[in-house]
Parts: sequence; structure tokens; C-alpha cells
Amino acid sequence: MKNLVSMKELSVEQIIAILEQAEAFRTGAASTLISKYTMANLFFEPSTRTKMSFEMAERRLPIDVLPFEAGFSSTLKGETLYDTVKVLEAIGLDALVIRHEQNNYFEELIGNVKPAIINGGDGTGNHPTQSLLDIFTIWQEFGTLEDKIVTIVGDIVHSRVARSNAQALTRLGATVQFVCPPEWQGEFETINSFEEAIETSDVLMMLRVQHERHDGLASFSKEAYNKSYGLTVDRERRMKDGAIIMHPAPFNRDVEIASELVECERSRIFKQMENGVYIRMAVIEMILKGRE
Amino acid sequence: MKNLVSMKELSVEQIIAILEQAEAFRTGAASTLISKYTMANLFFEPSTRTKMSFEMAERRLPIDVLPFEAGFSSTLKGETLYDTVKVLEAIGLDALVIRHEQNNYFEELIGNVKPAIINGGDGTGNHPTQSLLDIFTIWQEFGTLEDKIVTIVGDIVHSRVARSNAQALTRLGATVQFVCPPEWQGEFETINSFEEAIETSDVLMMLRVQHERHDGLASFSKEAYNKSYGLTVDRERRMKDGAIIMHPAPFNRDVEIASELVECERSRIFKQMENGVYIRMAVIEMILKGRE
Amino acid sequence: MKNLVSMKELSVEQIIAILEQAEAFRTGAASTLISKYTMANLFFEPSTRTKMSFEMAERRLPIDVLPFEAGFSSTLKGETLYDTVKVLEAIGLDALVIRHEQNNYFEELIGNVKPAIINGGDGTGNHPTQSLLDIFTIWQEFGTLEDKIVTIVGDIVHSRVARSNAQALTRLGATVQFVCPPEWQGEFETINSFEEAIETSDVLMMLRVQHERHDGLASFSKEAYNKSYGLTVDRERRMKDGAIIMHPAPFNRDVEIASELVECERSRIFKQMENGVYIRMAVIEMILKGRE
Repeated sequence: MKNLVSMKELSVEQIIAILEQAEAFRTGAASTLISKYTMANLFFEPSTRTKMSFEMAERRLPIDVLPFEAGFSSTLKGETLYDTVKVLEAIGLDALVIRHEQNNYFEELIGNVKPAIINGGDGTGNHPTQSLLDIFTIWQEFGTLEDKIVTIVGDIVHSRVARSNAQALTRLGATVQFVCPPEWQGEFETINSFEEAIETSDVLMMLRVQHERHDGLASFSKEAYNKSYGLTVDRERRMKDGAIIMHPAPFNRDVEIASELVECERSRIFKQMENGVYIRMAVIEMILKGRE
Repeated sequence: MKNLVSMKELSVEQIIAILEQAEAFRTGAASTLISKYTMANLFFEPSTRTKMSFEMAERRLPIDVLPFEAGFSSTLKGETLYDTVKVLEAIGLDALVIRHEQNNYFEELIGNVKPAIINGGDGTGNHPTQSLLDIFTIWQEFGTLEDKIVTIVGDIVHSRVARSNAQALTRLGATVQFVCPPEWQGEFETINSFEEAIETSDVLMMLRVQHERHDGLASFSKEAYNKSYGLTVDRERRMKDGAIIMHPAPFNRDVEIASELVECERSRIFKQMENGVYIRMAVIEMILKGRE
Repeated sequence: MKNLVSMKELSVEQIIAILEQAEAFRTGAASTLISKYTMANLFFEPSTRTKMSFEMAERRLPIDVLPFEAGFSSTLKGETLYDTVKVLEAIGLDALVIRHEQNNYFEELIGNVKPAIINGGDGTGNHPTQSLLDIFTIWQEFGTLEDKIVTIVGDIVHSRVARSNAQALTRLGATVQFVCPPEWQGEFETINSFEEAIETSDVLMMLRVQHERHDGLASFSKEAYNKSYGLTVDRERRMKDGAIIMHPAPFNRDVEIASELVECERSRIFKQMENGVYIRMAVIEMILKGRE
């Protein structure tokens, strides 16, 4: 593995290897990286958890991190992403985490630049480390993904999480199904009954209504969305024993999930974030070792 | 001490212990922290000195610091402070310094989150590390605060410094009095004669006119404010022997203090900033040790 | 050397010493700094390469770096540069890299503040580390600067690179000549024939059209500028054997340089950026040692 831009390029064996290394980091293993590396995190879209999670993972390995302020860089002088990356290559950076609003921004980079590219999210495209941490969280819970029913609910067409997860979960043996308002369905096939899915799913993965990507809730009010597609206290009660709630966050309390469920017993929302650090440590280590 | 959000919660003994530890750091003592810690500084309001002072204190201990850009975080996606802090808890941060425009923002955090919370300033409320560095500077100067007369001059109602200091200095034996234009008096009792206070005070603590918190100088021009409430060269000449000038900075030259007095012999303004690093090292060490 | 604000203050011997130390760093030498230092990079204008280059150089020495966000500092509260620097002095910083829009901003600092000042660019004035890395790149290429013909092309009057280089290259024995549209000529003497310069120069140094410093291209369209003053594929073919192309970047592809020439065999554009890290390591080390 020389880069990580989408889940498609990972084999099932590679995914399992990442999960196992993440679990090793979680239980206290130290990195076996030998050389000293320097990375930078190029976030051209706002982020708290993904950026901070990478920053933490990098420091724990440990890897030196150069600060990159997207809002105060030469991008303002019209520099292209390719040229910015070439600059960072010349300066000596070994790997770059990039989040960028343009789908597949990485296509012009892979093969043409020396630093490893780790995709931190491209437009409505991919978000592979989020997908890996979701898989890790389910794997940790059930010991396997085989035959697990994962229902992804909400704004799937704008969600890089839905896309990345759809690819990978199925290959690992899970059944993935989607629930969403018709206008956010896109190329995905959806099921009709959210109410039935609540009772049969092992995992309910609620997606964020992305106010910044479309004008409000389309034809919905927050209340109407919550009523039709939100995880309410009433719906949570009908989930099957041992079933868990996930959300990539940030979440809109009382829109896609009831505020009191965010930290409930079934919720793995903050566990996902904790797992993100171990997954990112594993991914970075594996990529840098693949280049040693 | 598990957190530090206001001076109220500190006993006189705890304050003295912090001063003594700060003095130890100032004279070259090394930190006795054993574990490796990671912190972040969440400044939702602009700051140079407080933020840089914490950054320096953290690196000197040494503690790993994750960069947090408030202006480029998920707060922009409507995430609440509580949820942001829970994210940082999940990611594994041990302590957070927070500056936030909302008074008492910390009330919903203390007791509900794992990271230690160190208040770097809440609205017009508290600024305990500033208060501690002010106390440290006076203590360094006079060896005690007993019977010292401290006159705080200026925009006291909008000042978290005035508030934090009023609480603590009195408990340490100092006499605190206030001078300000009537419209900025708020709940404070003020004295009538600034001219008399100049001659009798051991400490003149000039506050910044906070242009960003109210529309200019209310009914005052800069010149009029300076004439009535500013520390002019003429007033400085009438201060008693050994009396000192303090200012939490940033200062408006020739508004609350004459430009040529900023670095004069009586001025402890930059000494306060130097002391701030030692005070913050002491506070952070004490809190992290209290959690070990 | 206690500070570095312009090329004027450097003797030829000092320049050579910096080049030799940079070459030592390039070939793997470690820093011989003994004490632990802390720096900050104060960039009041956007920058990717200069800021990242300093950040990398500092970490490689290694030196602790405090993050300074110009867009979120007390400058917003009206604090002057002098006062900000005095704050950073009080907090304990050993050296500051400063980029500021005001020409000669450093004049009020040198001699009045303790931290070493390294100029990262002042308005249209100086950019000494850029000049040193340009010199290093030419020296690396030809083993000397004696009798080398360097033609600087473009927006020379707004360019701190042209200014810094004009001073230094000549002293090192090179012949420097300028080509530019009449309106950007300023105090510089220019030559008439760009076409002749292309065939006789050892170095063509193309400058960026600084869209942010003047309204577009004055009387030029991008195409017209490119036709008259741009390095086109056709012009590159007429360059003499062994001659090289330089550009301080960021570059406007197909304005001052044809897109396909950016990474061509003659281009040293990314080499310049790589060299910048070694030059900055050498400058910082030399300044800090001069203060030990």
C-alpha cells in the first residue's frame, strides 16, 4: 500500500491487516517505524475530528507534523493543488493527508508526486479512513462482519461515508441497506421500510444532514425529517438486543438522532472517534513502511 | 485541583502553592510529570499572548500540543462546544485550554467530560491564569500581598481580569479599589479620586479599553479618556516610591497608558507576560498531577 | 550575524559561509546547536513555500516552533508589530521569522528587541533567504557565480526577489540584467532585447505576475504578457547549453512560464524549494550560534 485514496483499492486481506494493527495500537503496541518522517495535513474544508484524529495519530507514532493553513496559503494566490503538493514534495514531506472539496482530486497526484497521499475526504466521493474506523468499530463489537445487517440512514447521496462503506462492508460479508428520502437517493438502491430495518439491523448508521451541501432539508423541516428518518427514543427501544448505533459526526442533535441517544448504551459514536486514531496510526504506518 | 475555571474555587493555600511552583520553574526547576500528555488550546476569540503563553508553557513541561483552529473547525458546521470537547476526549486529549466568548461556558463541561478544563477566558467572566500571573508579579515585587493597595483603573465591567483579581487579591490580604467612568462601573464599587489613588497605591493596574466589546469609548474621545483615566507621564511622577504599573495587555498606547510609560522603570507589563509562562506551567502540572 | 533582514548587510564571506553550511546540511550534516531554542513564524501575508520551508528547517535542526496565527492574533485588537514582538520576547522566544506587507517593518525592531529577526519578506523590499537559495541553486549548478549572466524577467518593481538578488548576485561576480514591461521598471535599468537575453543568459529567472499587488496585468492580457515576456517552449529551445530556468514561485502557468516547462530538464524551480530548506537551516543555525 503506497497511498490510500479509496476503499476500492484495498483487498480484504489488507483491510483485515489494518484492523489487526489498529487493535494492536489500541492495546498499547508501539510503532515499529524506523526512519524519521514528516507529514502535513492539508484540510481545504473545515474539520475537527478527522484533522485532530490524524494529528493525534501522527504524534503517537511519532511523526513530525508541519502546520498547513489552507485558508492562509498560496492557494489564495491561485496555486493549483498539484503545484502545492509539488512544493511540499520539494520541501521534503513524506506523506500528506488531504481533504478537498473536489471529487477525485487525487487522480492528478497519484503516480506524479513522491509524498504518499492519504485521502481525508474528497467532495462527495471517498473517505476511506472513516470507512475503516466504522468497520473496525463493528468488527470490535461482533468479532466479524459476516452476515451483519448494516442500515445506513439519511443523506446518502452527499455522503462520502455511505459510498466508502458501501464498497467495503459488502466485501467483508455484511449486508448493507440504505434508507433515505427519495431526493437524496442518487445511484443507491434503498429499502422501503425504515421501521422494519430498525428491528432487524445489527448496526444503524445515521448520517448527518449536511446543511452546508444543500439548501436546508429540501422539502423537509427538521421536525419532519426527524419524524421520518431520525433515530428517536421510541425507535431505539425497538432495536434488537446487542444492536449498535453509529454516526460519523458531527451530528445534528434531534435531527438525525435524538439528543439523549448520543451517549446511550447502544451508541458507539465516541468509540468510533477513539478508534479513528488507531486506524489512522495503522494506515500511516503501513504506507510509510511500504515505502521504506 | 482537577480543573481551573475561576479564582473562586482556589483556596489561599492552593494559590500560594501555584506561586511557589511558578517561582521554582522561573529559577530553572524541571517538571516532575511522569506520563506523556497531549493538550489542545481552543481559542474561539483572538489572542496572542494568552495562547502563545500556554503554547510555550506546554512545550516547556513538555506536553504534546495538537493544533486546533477554531476558525476552521466543525463549529462552522454548527457543532456545540460540548460535542467538540467530547470529540477531543474520544481522540485522547488529556487537558484543554478554552477561551470562549460565552460567560461560564465551562458549566456544562465540568463533571461531564474527561479532559481537564483550563479556562483561558470566558466572555466578561473569568481569566484565572491572568489573575494568578498578576498576583505572582505583585508577590515577586513585594514578597507579600498583605496590606498592598491595588487600584484597578478602566473598563472594569467588561474585564474578566478585574473580576478574577477582585476575588483573589482581597483574600490574599490586599486592598483592591476601582476607578472607572460611571458607565463601566457595573456591580463594582468605585472610589472617587483617581488623583489620590495614584499617590497612595502600591500597584496601578490599568485595563485595556476594549474597542471590540463596545462602540468606541462611549461618550469619550481617546483624548478625553486619557485625560480622565489614563496613566499619563505626569501622573506616573506622582506615584509613590516602589509603586509599580501593571496592564494585562494588549494596551492602547496613549489611551489608558502613555506610550513612553509602557517600558518605564515602574512598568511590569512585560514581566507579567514572562511570569504568565511560569504560572501556566505550574497550573498545568498541578492539574495533570492531580489526575495521575 | 545576529539578525537577517536584507542581503546588504551580508559580506561575500558570510554568503559563502551560508552556502557551504547549506551544502553540508544537504549532504546530511547534523546541526551543532547545543541549547534548546524556540521560534515562531509570523506570516502576516499568505505563504505556502516560505512558511513551510522555515517550519521544516526549524524542525530539522531541531528547534521548537510555537504556532502563530496572524489572522487570529491580537493584531486584530490593534496591537502594533513592535508590541507583538515584545510580547513574544517576554514569553521567551529566541528568534522570529517575520513576513509583513510593510517595507522595512524591521527597522523599529532591530536593536530594540531580544529575539533574532529573520526577514521572510517585507512588502516590495527584501526577501534575503529567497535570494540566498537562488544563489545556492546557481552556485550548485555552475560551481561559481563569477561571470554568470542572470536575466531577471517580469514584475521587477513589485518583486522583493529582484531587489534582494540584484544586490547580492553582482557582488558575487555575476552580471544581472532585467527585462520587463516599461510600467514595472521602477528604479531598475532594463535591457531592450529579451530575445537576445534568452540566447546569452546562463540563468533565466522568471518572476511571478503578482495579481494581488496590482490590478491584473496593467495594459496586458495574460496572452499578451506571455507573448512578450513569458518563457514559451519556443524561447526555451533557444536557450544556450547548460542554461537553467528559475522561478521563485508560486508561478502562473502559461503566463510567465509555459506549463510544460515547469518540470522540464532546465527547470530548477523545485530544486530551488528543496534548497530553501537547507539555506534556512544554515541561516537559523548561524544566527542562533552568533547569540550563544
